[in-house]
Amino acid sequence: MTAEIICVGTELLLGDIVNTNAQFLSRELAELGISVLHQHVVGDNVPRLQALVAQAKARSGLLVFSGGLGPTADDLTKETVAAAFDDPLRFDEAQWRKIIAFFARMGRTPTENNRKQAMVPTRGHAVENDHGTAPGAWFEDGQGHCAVLLPGVPREMKAMWAEQVRPLLERRQNCTIRSRTLHVLGGESSIASKAAPLFEGENPTAAIYCKTGESEIRVTARAADAAAAEALCEERLAKFRAVLGDAAYDTDVPGLAWTVVRALRERGLHAATAESCTGGLIAQRLTEAPGASEVFGYGFVTYAEAAKQTLLGVPEELLKRYTVYSGPVAVAMARGALAASGAELAVAVTGIAGPGGALPGKPVGTVYLAGADARTGQAYLYRLALSAYREREVVRARAALWALDVLRRMALGLGQPGARCAAADAAPDTWDL
Amino acid sequence: MTAEIICVGTELLLGDIVNTNAQFLSRELAELGISVLHQHVVGDNVPRLQALVAQAKARSGLLVFSGGLGPTADDLTKETVAAAFDDPLRFDEAQWRKIIAFFARMGRTPTENNRKQAMVPTRGHAVENDHGTAPGAWFEDGQGHCAVLLPGVPREMKAMWAEQVRPLLERRQNCTIRSRTLHVLGGESSIASKAAPLFEGENPTAAIYCKTGESEIRVTARAADAAAAEALCEERLAKFRAVLGDAAYDTDVPGLAWTVVRALRERGLHAATAESCTGGLIAQRLTEAPGASEVFGYGFVTYAEAAKQTLLGVPEELLKRYTVYSGPVAVAMARGALAASGAELAVAVTGIAGPGGALPGKPVGTVYLAGADARTGQAYLYRLALSAYREREVVRARAALWALDVLRRMALGLGQPGARCAAADAAPDTWDL
Repeated sequence: MTAEIICVGTELLLGDIVNTNAQFLSRELAELGISVLHQHVVGDNVPRLQALVAQAKARSGLLVFSGGLGPTADDLTKETVAAAFDDPLRFDEAQWRKIIAFFARMGRTPTENNRKQAMVPTRGHAVENDHGTAPGAWFEDGQGHCAVLLPGVPREMKAMWAEQVRPLLERRQNCTIRSRTLHVLGGESSIASKAAPLFEGENPTAAIYCKTGESEIRVTARAADAAAAEALCEERLAKFRAVLGDAAYDTDVPGLAWTVVRALRERGLHAATAESCTGGLIAQRLTEAPGASEVFGYGFVTYAEAAKQTLLGVPEELLKRYTVYSGPVAVAMARGALAASGAELAVAVTGIAGPGGALPGKPVGTVYLAGADARTGQAYLYRLALSAYREREVVRARAALWALDVLRRMALGLGQPGARCAAADAAPDTWDL
Repeated sequence: MTAEIICVGTELLLGDIVNTNAQFLSRELAELGISVLHQHVVGDNVPRLQALVAQAKARSGLLVFSGGLGPTADDLTKETVAAAFDDPLRFDEAQWRKIIAFFARMGRTPTENNRKQAMVPTRGHAVENDHGTAPGAWFEDGQGHCAVLLPGVPREMKAMWAEQVRPLLERRQNCTIRSRTLHVLGGESSIASKAAPLFEGENPTAAIYCKTGESEIRVTARAADAAAAEALCEERLAKFRAVLGDAAYDTDVPGLAWTVVRALRERGLHAATAESCTGGLIAQRLTEAPGASEVFGYGFVTYAEAAKQTLLGVPEELLKRYTVYSGPVAVAMARGALAASGAELAVAVTGIAGPGGALPGKPVGTVYLAGADARTGQAYLYRLALSAYREREVVRARAALWALDVLRRMALGLGQPGARCAAADAAPDTWDL
């Protein structure tokens, strides 16, 4: 089966918003094994919409719409599709009561205009909206073509898709589909060089999505039932983990901070942070994960040299001898954070995020990262060479990610510095302390 | 003139990436006074692309393409458009030398495949690419239709658009266009209620883009020359500023942190931060602005109660009497940050970001924000009621934005708490300290 995605909305044509709905729907359809031939964006213009629907319907078996379900006279998507599918709309009392109830919860009453939102297909059916006013609609033309209409609000659209449309399409495809996401430190090329064959094959499929300094590998399997699909996913995930080693840090988590917080909680450990160029980013990311308060009590943003001395006890002599951008200062910051917080583990970062501040031999992007472990007295030092990334924001984000990973490695007792996907980024400094 | 945007790329149809190019091009075309009728996404499929180009060309005078200019045999966008515009491609030695030089700078040599990237229109012309290998192309059919082909990489596409395509379209439209962006605290509805008439009219136009807790108003004017267009913008901006007051915090800046850092620098002031539920976000945002090191030396992330006591000197008795989520504790944190840092100004935040942690009468989203000014001895206290935003991330982001604004108000000597767009968010607590 092939599909086309049609997003209706003047705000998209004006560039007021970015079309994340098209990406979401494309990815979902790909996972269902349905090829998307076209994505379209049109305004609330009936002749143009009519022409587009006729063309798309001639090419593809499934049309997926988002937007155009509002209560105003301009919103004619449902009427236009109903005509193209020869499936007249009827007023549905149950939907109307639901709309009235939704408004009541918001302390409002619907207007006469909202009545058109309670119109549903006769041959097809409504798609329930438990998250907003406009129900969606499912149309069939009796000749194998169908269309599904969803609201444009991403939160409503995604929920209705997951709860109703995806299960319906799975039944039509006569299979159950499951996806899992493996989180891996490092970029696409380093992962591809190790795991290229694992991205081949039709079932399960594996796709890679790059983020700053890390990647997500999404594995999707189709099978007769959920257990079989999950087993197919798990088998492929195990192969990825075997090849990628401890660069594969977790499965199905929002991010590395969640992994770190869980690792610390499970072991009863506490972490402290001491930050210069990252300016609070490590602490902020760590505390994105709910429950961080159990494992994180103290964060030091020591942007000034004096702050490094007074809060972390970094000796002035060290700052003078090595400069503030140096391994010894990073280690002293991490050890100072342990002493000032009573935590078992600490990470510290000092470096040059740019655009200014470069020193001879230390270009923008030079970042020193240290981990310290009060249980063993050991410290770990990395010099990150992030000059290639140029932008201040990216240098900071990569340094913070590495810092969280150093925490993870200390908490889990993994190699430090270990074999890792993005190893080219880092080199331990060799001086004696 | 009407236009259509055609983005070519399988990675878009698979949902691997979000289509930010379409948004950028739509917004640019809107500013040029060119109506976008359709956005399309297609894969590298010649028959489908041919059909689409023929349809779009029949409807619209300008077709804007991104993607499909790569060196492989699949990349046939340029060839397809050349045929539709009856403008044969020719090999261009100068473009080929440029491609060789670009590869040389990357330490590589082009392959035979790359030669097709040096093919340029005969009647039209190349669009120079100084940021990558693939030059763009401008086609004309001699009957008033034109097409411009740009690479899919957003950085290259945007630079080529700004440097070459936009000026060319301005000349064709026989005008000069300038845009400015006013940054305003508060959401669309609060701004619309005060400034609705200022969004009307054709020249200048004004459009609003919402971000978390704040909005951008983009004013765009067309005139015979740049000075006249800028004057039209400035006139409208002045009216917005008059209506919106000091909620309009700056013009053409990346964000509020830049405004705060500049205000502090210009006055020789320093700021410190003391954060609980925001977990370092205020410090992190402040240090996003280059030059922050001149005005910000100390940030305290006191997630644990003990950290509030030891680093900021918050009396244990205060924590016991009022709980850690309270105005008195926020004020004590801000005063403590002043004392520990020597800064003139400090902000402090303590509250419940969620999902857990609610107390009787203090739901998730209750945040106490204090500012302290060492020059006057004064403290300012806000209670932010952010429960409606539900998500931890949004509660933290809004609290951090408010905190930066309190810093701005202290630095600039503005009202505290003043009349502001988002005033419904905040209410000062009334207890005695």
